[in-house]
Amino acid sequence: MTLAMDGTALAQFMEREFPQLAADFVIERLAEQGLLLRLRVEDRHLRPGGTVSGPSMFALADCAFYLTILARVGPEALAVTTSCAIDFLRRPEAGRDLLCETRLLKLGRALVVGDALIFSEGDEAAPVARASLTYSRPPRREAAAG
Amino acid sequence: MTLAMDGTALAQFMEREFPQLAADFVIERLAEQGLLLRLRVEDRHLRPGGTVSGPSMFALADCAFYLTILARVGPEALAVTTSCAIDFLRRPEAGRDLLCETRLLKLGRALVVGDALIFSEGDEAAPVARASLTYSRPPRREAAAG
Amino acid sequence: MTLAMDGTALAQFMEREFPQLAADFVIERLAEQGLLLRLRVEDRHLRPGGTVSGPSMFALADCAFYLTILARVGPEALAVTTSCAIDFLRRPEAGRDLLCETRLLKLGRALVVGDALIFSEGDEAAPVARASLTYSRPPRREAAAG
Amino acid sequence: MTLAMDGTALAQFMEREFPQLAADFVIERLAEQGLLLRLRVEDRHLRPGGTVSGPSMFALADCAFYLTILARVGPEALAVTTSCAIDFLRRPEAGRDLLCETRLLKLGRALVVGDALIFSEGDEAAPVARASLTYSRPPRREAAAG
Repeated sequence: MTLAMDGTALAQFMEREFPQLAADFVIERLAEQGLLLRLRVEDRHLRPGGTVSGPSMFALADCAFYLTILARVGPEALAVTTSCAIDFLRRPEAGRDLLCETRLLKLGRALVVGDALIFSEGDEAAPVARASLTYSRPPRREAAAG
Repeated sequence: MTLAMDGTALAQFMEREFPQLAADFVIERLAEQGLLLRLRVEDRHLRPGGTVSGPSMFALADCAFYLTILARVGPEALAVTTSCAIDFLRRPEAGRDLLCETRLLKLGRALVVGDALIFSEGDEAAPVARASLTYSRPPRREAAAG
Repeated sequence: MTLAMDGTALAQFMEREFPQLAADFVIERLAEQGLLLRLRVEDRHLRPGGTVSGPSMFALADCAFYLTILARVGPEALAVTTSCAIDFLRRPEAGRDLLCETRLLKLGRALVVGDALIFSEGDEAAPVARASLTYSRPPRREAAAG
Repeated sequence: MTLAMDGTALAQFMEREFPQLAADFVIERLAEQGLLLRLRVEDRHLRPGGTVSGPSMFALADCAFYLTILARVGPEALAVTTSCAIDFLRRPEAGRDLLCETRLLKLGRALVVGDALIFSEGDEAAPVARASLTYSRPPRREAAAG
């Protein structure tokens, strides 16, 4: 089992397909069973009080798991999110980037399932959120006729 | 049982506390057991292809349920999201606002639980997403001194 | 749109395929978009204190949604549960049957999504649990060989 | 940080409080951040075809996380399940016990959150289910009056 795309290929894919998101995220580590993705926290991710908003954490988990799948199956047939269950555990630290670690639990032909743990940089022992995600893969096109 | 805040009070609260979000949302209907919230879909909510992004739908469900609680308990002791489980069912129609209908299932002293159904305007029979949400209410401060 | 199986056919299917469960459940009402299923509460469903156990409520929601799908697609290609998110809202009343009302939100070719509300008989306004369920349908077999 | 109850104390507690369940489960390993619980698979846990039923896996995850909390906080003030989101990933192997590994992510005063991974004995790399669980702790009774 090897990766279909490496970190550079994933970053280039993001810049091309999701230019408005690509600057937010940095892949810190990449392996077959998951990756570590950084959210560069900016003002637009914050709620009053300086804490990262729920939708920004949702987007981080969703993007991290999307890249995890992409790294394995490549860019040709794009999976879509079918569900996400997210628990918010603690308030993120103000002024710190968030890191999201994913774990691929099942890479099926129809469904991909995994989870993600989000924590403030430097505070891995006290996660701020966890999420379970399911993606659906499109049915394979049989035999692209010439 | 009556509402602690009406639609005007909720809108003013949003403008004061979440000015960057307030323009996105319009309360269309408000009752004790839930409300109907409109997301005015703009370019910033879209993914390539013109469909509303997952984080924007998450934000819609979360905001709608937050306002549902606020309408009942008032603004003094703010509840926070502890979990959200969202299923994405269909692609939203491009170029249409989304509507989110909430349903309050339990308004407890510690936890508030409910759900939300999201659909493209005019297409209520084919929801694009559904979400279950839990909010935690802060413990009441016993005995204001004096 | 019509039902592929009526209440009698569903009950016969249950007795044949799941004889150990069939006696627990009674279909009270059946429609295209959902049904109402009764759990005949017996001692084996109870926890100390006389309240219905969590696994029994899970089984009720799961069975109710399974029958909801079966009524629509018929018995030939069996769907399997891929996820269930359940919230426990209140303690069920001791000595009362539970009723579970389902709602079909998406009947796709690959995934079926819906939810369920569980309440003690006679107390519909105070649900004891709610659940979101996803079932996966097996890929259709193309072209039965001649 | 130490454990409030060890494996022997937990097993005795189960036998006393949940005698009908205690024989199903064996604590294989216990630590501060989680435990490993065995479900001794018997006929009553099976569905036609010999696979462990969904409700039995739900019960395993729920019991394992309950014991995880009990080990930390002791038996005096019992937490109750408020939510469980479970994904079924693969069919369990027939004729094998299931093992459930828990992970405590937040032990708050009001809410306890964690997750659980279930696999067939000897096949840890291919989990059959994963679950996220939230338990609610009752408010502490202030000052038991003399």
